[in-house]
Amino acid sequence: MFTKTRKTVPADETALNAQLLIKAGYIHKEMAGVYTYLPLGLTVLNNIANIIRQEMNAIGAQEVLMPALQIKERYMLTGRWDDKVVDDWFKTKLVNGTELGLGFSHEENLSPILKDYISSYKDLPVGIYQIQTKFRNELRSKSGLMRGREFLMKDLYSYAISEQQHHEFYDKAKAAYIKIFDRLGIGDQTFIVTASGGTFSKYSHEFQTITKAGEDTIYIDRAKGLGINKEVFNDEVMADLGLKHADLEKVPAIEVGNIFSLGT
Amino acid sequence: MFTKTRKTVPADETALNAQLLIKAGYIHKEMAGVYTYLPLGLTVLNNIANIIRQEMNAIGAQEVLMPALQIKERYMLTGRWDDKVVDDWFKTKLVNGTELGLGFSHEENLSPILKDYISSYKDLPVGIYQIQTKFRNELRSKSGLMRGREFLMKDLYSYAISEQQHHEFYDKAKAAYIKIFDRLGIGDQTFIVTASGGTFSKYSHEFQTITKAGEDTIYIDRAKGLGINKEVFNDEVMADLGLKHADLEKVPAIEVGNIFSLGT
Repeated sequence: MFTKTRKTVPADETALNAQLLIKAGYIHKEMAGVYTYLPLGLTVLNNIANIIRQEMNAIGAQEVLMPALQIKERYMLTGRWDDKVVDDWFKTKLVNGTELGLGFSHEENLSPILKDYISSYKDLPVGIYQIQTKFRNELRSKSGLMRGREFLMKDLYSYAISEQQHHEFYDKAKAAYIKIFDRLGIGDQTFIVTASGGTFSKYSHEFQTITKAGEDTIYIDRAKGLGINKEVFNDEVMADLGLKHADLEKVPAIEVGNIFSLGT
Repeated sequence: MFTKTRKTVPADETALNAQLLIKAGYIHKEMAGVYTYLPLGLTVLNNIANIIRQEMNAIGAQEVLMPALQIKERYMLTGRWDDKVVDDWFKTKLVNGTELGLGFSHEENLSPILKDYISSYKDLPVGIYQIQTKFRNELRSKSGLMRGREFLMKDLYSYAISEQQHHEFYDKAKAAYIKIFDRLGIGDQTFIVTASGGTFSKYSHEFQTITKAGEDTIYIDRAKGLGINKEVFNDEVMADLGLKHADLEKVPAIEVGNIFSLGT
């Protein structure tokens, strides 16, 4: 192996996770939020990806690989081209001047593909995922591997014939994520946390792992394995989840996964 | 599997390779030179990548994963930032206005990493490769998967203490490529073709596979398995290679690999 342990790290590397991984020869810093995976780091990354792949396949999801280069017109349709709506776009251009984006997520890619293939209720539900490089133009990227500008992400998308069928798949996916975090050895520190649902649904579910370096604050009931994100920590949510103030503990955590209903 | 065979292809898809792969549900066209790999296509892509990976590992090369986002300053040092020098850059910007490029090749990334780790002649030779997504802003991209704007590429880089050590590794890599094309089932149609060496060496070696759809023209000696690219087809090259006019056949081909001495 060509890497060795090192005593020094780049002066601008303030994140403990990246400092340790650089010293051990797992990664090399290219710029804030952008790292090269050296042989040891790539081995770990592939091991994680393969666990995720196995659990996605186990719930019947099918793997594809969508491109980073994104067509402007599709995002004009969904209202997500404007930098004021999506503030972390990287944008680029073809030689002929045509504007393109670098994918931060792939809803706009997958739905046109599915239109070619879904023609009957028998084709649903379907779950499709990829393990693919995302680009996010973070204003600040000081948390090492925790908030990258270019990073490998597993994104799973599901399509259903009805709300009931959707929720059945949602629950299967949630169970798969729990299994993944268990297999990765962080299951006992990872909680299903209720968070804001955004435009389409009341709540979303975050998988939050307790760590001192976490950027999020969550309130957890350790016995129940459940939690509430600080951003929606109020009496209504506590009542919905059947949680009591006395059982809750406030902890810092990092979001390691997220699952939500997008709507139509 | 959610894909089905299709009877139609996008009107702007003129390449036979892409037409057939779209009809069979292997790929989906996003834009010229940019495709999604559907489950069947991804399976084939992964099978090819794994054969390459095995043969790279067999010659002692080590796998890494470098990022697409590229720092301008490094290419200023090597003179490759200017669009007049490298005419297929995709460029982008950080939120703060800092210019970045999308990697078309990774020499500028790897050498700074090696500077951290190579401290003795005992550390050489070293071969390092990745199987990673390249971005090339092709003016025209009408050949389906044969000339992509975004595509998966295996790039292997070697570092040596002397010219002799370099050539020993070069020959090992060449043998590995022959083995790869044999295992992929195109070995008998693939020839080692002498081509222009560019700035640093007299010749480079291309691996060219005979196909009617090929964009290159080569002159081959089938018995010897050798050939000459049209661009350097002259008496001097024929003499260097020990080839005779009478034994040569002119055929169209596609470059499926390339190996060259970069220098210092």
